[in-house]
Amino acid sequence: MRRSLAHVMAAAVLRRYPGAKCAAGICTDDGFRYDFELPETLTDARLPEIDAEMRKIIGADVPFSVSSMSRQEAFALFSGEPYLTERLSETAEGGTVNTCTAAGFTDIAGGPYNGTTGSLSSCGFKLLSVSGAYWKGDEHRPMLQRISAAAFSGEAQLASYVERLEQLRKRDHRLIGAEQDLFSLHEEAGPGLCYWHPKGGRMRVAIENFWRDEHYKNGYEIVFTPHVGKSWLWETSGHLGFYKDSMYNPMEMDNTDYYIKPMNCPFHIMIYKNSRRSYRDLPFRWAELGTVYRFEKSGTLHGLTRVRGFTQDDAHIFCTPEQMDGEISEVLRFSLYMLRSFDFTDVSAYLSTRPLGKSVGADEKWTAATEALRRAIEREGLAYEVDEGGGAFYGPKIDLKVKDSLGREWQLSTIQFDFNLPERFGLTYTGRDGSEKQPYMVHRALLGSLERFFGVMIENYAGSYPVWLCPTQVQVIPVNRDADPYANSVRLKLRAAGIRADIDTGEDNMKQKIKAAQVQKIPYMFILGTKEAESGTVSCRVRTGEQQNSVPFDDMLQIIRQKIEKKEQP
Amino acid sequence: MRRSLAHVMAAAVLRRYPGAKCAAGICTDDGFRYDFELPETLTDARLPEIDAEMRKIIGADVPFSVSSMSRQEAFALFSGEPYLTERLSETAEGGTVNTCTAAGFTDIAGGPYNGTTGSLSSCGFKLLSVSGAYWKGDEHRPMLQRISAAAFSGEAQLASYVERLEQLRKRDHRLIGAEQDLFSLHEEAGPGLCYWHPKGGRMRVAIENFWRDEHYKNGYEIVFTPHVGKSWLWETSGHLGFYKDSMYNPMEMDNTDYYIKPMNCPFHIMIYKNSRRSYRDLPFRWAELGTVYRFEKSGTLHGLTRVRGFTQDDAHIFCTPEQMDGEISEVLRFSLYMLRSFDFTDVSAYLSTRPLGKSVGADEKWTAATEALRRAIEREGLAYEVDEGGGAFYGPKIDLKVKDSLGREWQLSTIQFDFNLPERFGLTYTGRDGSEKQPYMVHRALLGSLERFFGVMIENYAGSYPVWLCPTQVQVIPVNRDADPYANSVRLKLRAAGIRADIDTGEDNMKQKIKAAQVQKIPYMFILGTKEAESGTVSCRVRTGEQQNSVPFDDMLQIIRQKIEKKEQP
Repeated sequence: MRRSLAHVMAAAVLRRYPGAKCAAGICTDDGFRYDFELPETLTDARLPEIDAEMRKIIGADVPFSVSSMSRQEAFALFSGEPYLTERLSETAEGGTVNTCTAAGFTDIAGGPYNGTTGSLSSCGFKLLSVSGAYWKGDEHRPMLQRISAAAFSGEAQLASYVERLEQLRKRDHRLIGAEQDLFSLHEEAGPGLCYWHPKGGRMRVAIENFWRDEHYKNGYEIVFTPHVGKSWLWETSGHLGFYKDSMYNPMEMDNTDYYIKPMNCPFHIMIYKNSRRSYRDLPFRWAELGTVYRFEKSGTLHGLTRVRGFTQDDAHIFCTPEQMDGEISEVLRFSLYMLRSFDFTDVSAYLSTRPLGKSVGADEKWTAATEALRRAIEREGLAYEVDEGGGAFYGPKIDLKVKDSLGREWQLSTIQFDFNLPERFGLTYTGRDGSEKQPYMVHRALLGSLERFFGVMIENYAGSYPVWLCPTQVQVIPVNRDADPYANSVRLKLRAAGIRADIDTGEDNMKQKIKAAQVQKIPYMFILGTKEAESGTVSCRVRTGEQQNSVPFDDMLQIIRQKIEKKEQP
Repeated sequence: MRRSLAHVMAAAVLRRYPGAKCAAGICTDDGFRYDFELPETLTDARLPEIDAEMRKIIGADVPFSVSSMSRQEAFALFSGEPYLTERLSETAEGGTVNTCTAAGFTDIAGGPYNGTTGSLSSCGFKLLSVSGAYWKGDEHRPMLQRISAAAFSGEAQLASYVERLEQLRKRDHRLIGAEQDLFSLHEEAGPGLCYWHPKGGRMRVAIENFWRDEHYKNGYEIVFTPHVGKSWLWETSGHLGFYKDSMYNPMEMDNTDYYIKPMNCPFHIMIYKNSRRSYRDLPFRWAELGTVYRFEKSGTLHGLTRVRGFTQDDAHIFCTPEQMDGEISEVLRFSLYMLRSFDFTDVSAYLSTRPLGKSVGADEKWTAATEALRRAIEREGLAYEVDEGGGAFYGPKIDLKVKDSLGREWQLSTIQFDFNLPERFGLTYTGRDGSEKQPYMVHRALLGSLERFFGVMIENYAGSYPVWLCPTQVQVIPVNRDADPYANSVRLKLRAAGIRADIDTGEDNMKQKIKAAQVQKIPYMFILGTKEAESGTVSCRVRTGEQQNSVPFDDMLQIIRQKIEKKEQP
């Protein structure tokens, strides 16, 4: 069906653009697409005309005629069609070639077709977009125009698919990030590197403050380490051996290679090794918002969810064997608490165990660590899957994946044992019996990377954040110039109370100002005129649409503070 | 006098270490030193013996005999003295050579001497240290032993000098940093790169939180930008042209050079250029705790005060000409407020004006900016000096220097105009008249770099910080095992109240625990036993030595909170 529709689309394009050269089409999981060389550059605005032409062809109910011929006959048939000729030359020599003709267009047949175009009339299809695509995906070959379409067996399925596409589009963090002026990326200054704008910065500061407070409350200490280090660090850690391809190349200075860090671990280890450690000092829980750099392939970069520089909410736990069980339970409990604080409540766990073949660490350590992870998951009553043998060579781990409001799964938290680094760096502590022992070491990131988390969070909330995260919590809107002084005083009172309040003293009228605040999804608008100024009250319009008039300032402040405190929506 | 003392010291060393070879001595601003090749390696423990020998020579009151001879005669005299022979060979050929002999040692005379050793008896001198020093400062020549001494015309001057040395030593941030376990540097992982340990991290978090809050209160926005960028950024900014020597070398990736940033400015400019800007949007005050990397020569590195990686408390102000005056006043006022918050109250300003020769920017901009800086200083009533022509080629600036508690001057804040970057990056805003104009751009750092500021601050407070900065604000000390449960509950209550409280449940006795807390300069010790547990009170010993017994917990909490709030000492 999708193949037949692709054929119909090619025929329609040929009718509207005589001289067009058809290249190739394919069926996709949710539709089809076809690439063309066209006499003019199309925009999406042209798609309705092609759609109309397709529906005419379907209405005419003409047959798809498939025929078989020798390669030689086919070459003759497709002379003047460079792309079809090239495709033909890729078929087996001496074989026969099937072609399909309908509505004046003959293609090399790629599989079965419907009987007639009329049988497509019950399908639901929609042309989605025109984009550029290199012939054969090769940037040295001609740039063609690709028309992509969704297609399903009925209109209802199409409608629900299009609805979901629209949801995804509206929630796209790149779109919302631009609308709300939260962040940007700059290809010319380096792809995959995020610039947090003032409003994104306010949100990041809110997240970081919460993160730091919670870490201190949960018995962590916060450290800060450099972003560069000599190759010695990465040789010792082994990263240069097995991870070099993902690292930025070195900076050579004074005959020494320095690397920008892809991970924080060796730096935390340097702090560990700075003093002699005793069992009395352990456990250490050292956390850092550490910005790391990894040179991901440019084709895989995507907004904030796949970047080259990101701030891990990293921590390392160093503990004795006796402490391990309790520490793992604590870190899992804390992970879930953090995720739930951002309304990620649908969480699954994935436990990865010892891989076959090469791995480091004694059997009993692997068993003890894996069982500690399993017990922690079971204590929390989490659904989990076991990836037998799927662990890294240096230790077992738990990954936590959350489902967002569209049902997509995102891996955020990781709790990963490491039997490799304590060995390589020779970490020890003095045990109760006076002998030197090796501590257990656990890497853990709760949010993962702040950039990726931010992207996922924006899409999950569709830009409508709970009050504590909103870059602007209250937009103060004076209804006219006379109300400016009162509006300013209200804004100052809000700021003094620690509320992120902005004021719109622009030239727009009140309705436009309200509209602008709604587009920004600001949770509270204080609309202030003479009446409010005289009574010292505020009229408050909430993002949800409700409005309360002439409320005492302190009452409204109280409500907002409670919403912030409870991390709730307005 | 110092020359004569150096001679006496050399003679004393020769007496105690027959076979020693004297190399060379010099007078310094506060004493003298002499370098020797010795048959054994000295430690500071040997200095009293040499001191005693010197005092014998002085007591013997022997003459300094200066005589003149030909170079040839001198070579004969110093045969068997390789260093003196080498020094001799550096004198002018055919000239005469003066020598000085006293107490059995003959040196090449470097200037006038006292008449007799006895005349030195009224001097105050003290041998300070033995250290290694390459002959001629050349690492390919022999390593000698250098004895350094302080010397003044009287005992009183010596005493006050030694007292000051002791003060400096006790306040050395490297020493206090190690004692209080605040930070470390690791040569093998990269010189000049600071690792903030858990306790240093607590202090940095306190400083950063204060910094962020104050910046928001003062109308700044906080941004976050990457640590690396393509060479395009630094070519456009001009850093690669005039600043390359101080930058780390590039990382080449995909045929492009990436640099780790030495400055944040081009990144803030990318945010500016991300949208069209109107006069209505200005001023922008964008601040970042931006970590930058500069490859300072290894010989100039010193603890935290001269490093290769540091976090600038950076901001850029973009404003219209009409706003400039107000902005500069504001930023100066804010700078002084921040410095005073850390008890730096003795502040002087240095105004640097347009350099002769190469500089960029129109005359009227230089004049307007320089006058704005001058007016701001005068409005604050600050003492200031003008460095005529001492500005950078791209704009005038104010530096603020603070005097610390030992009277040393440190440059911390800078407020620097930049007429270069707005031009190079083509920054504009739409003016009220609809035309595109170039904004004024001001760089400013208040604390300068967090690392350097931290070093200076540690020395200024000599490790006894005001309560809000202390890594541990309360040390909870149970007097015996029975008191542990109550002590733990008090610690939890303190933590819940946002107080940084630790507990010492170690094996030491109470006196040892108090001593340990005093060494750490912890402002409050809660000493808890059965009496306190039964009455629900605390006995509190303050860093200053006072003690209050059986105070209700809430009263003590109230006192501590007020000290924190007011940024006061305990």
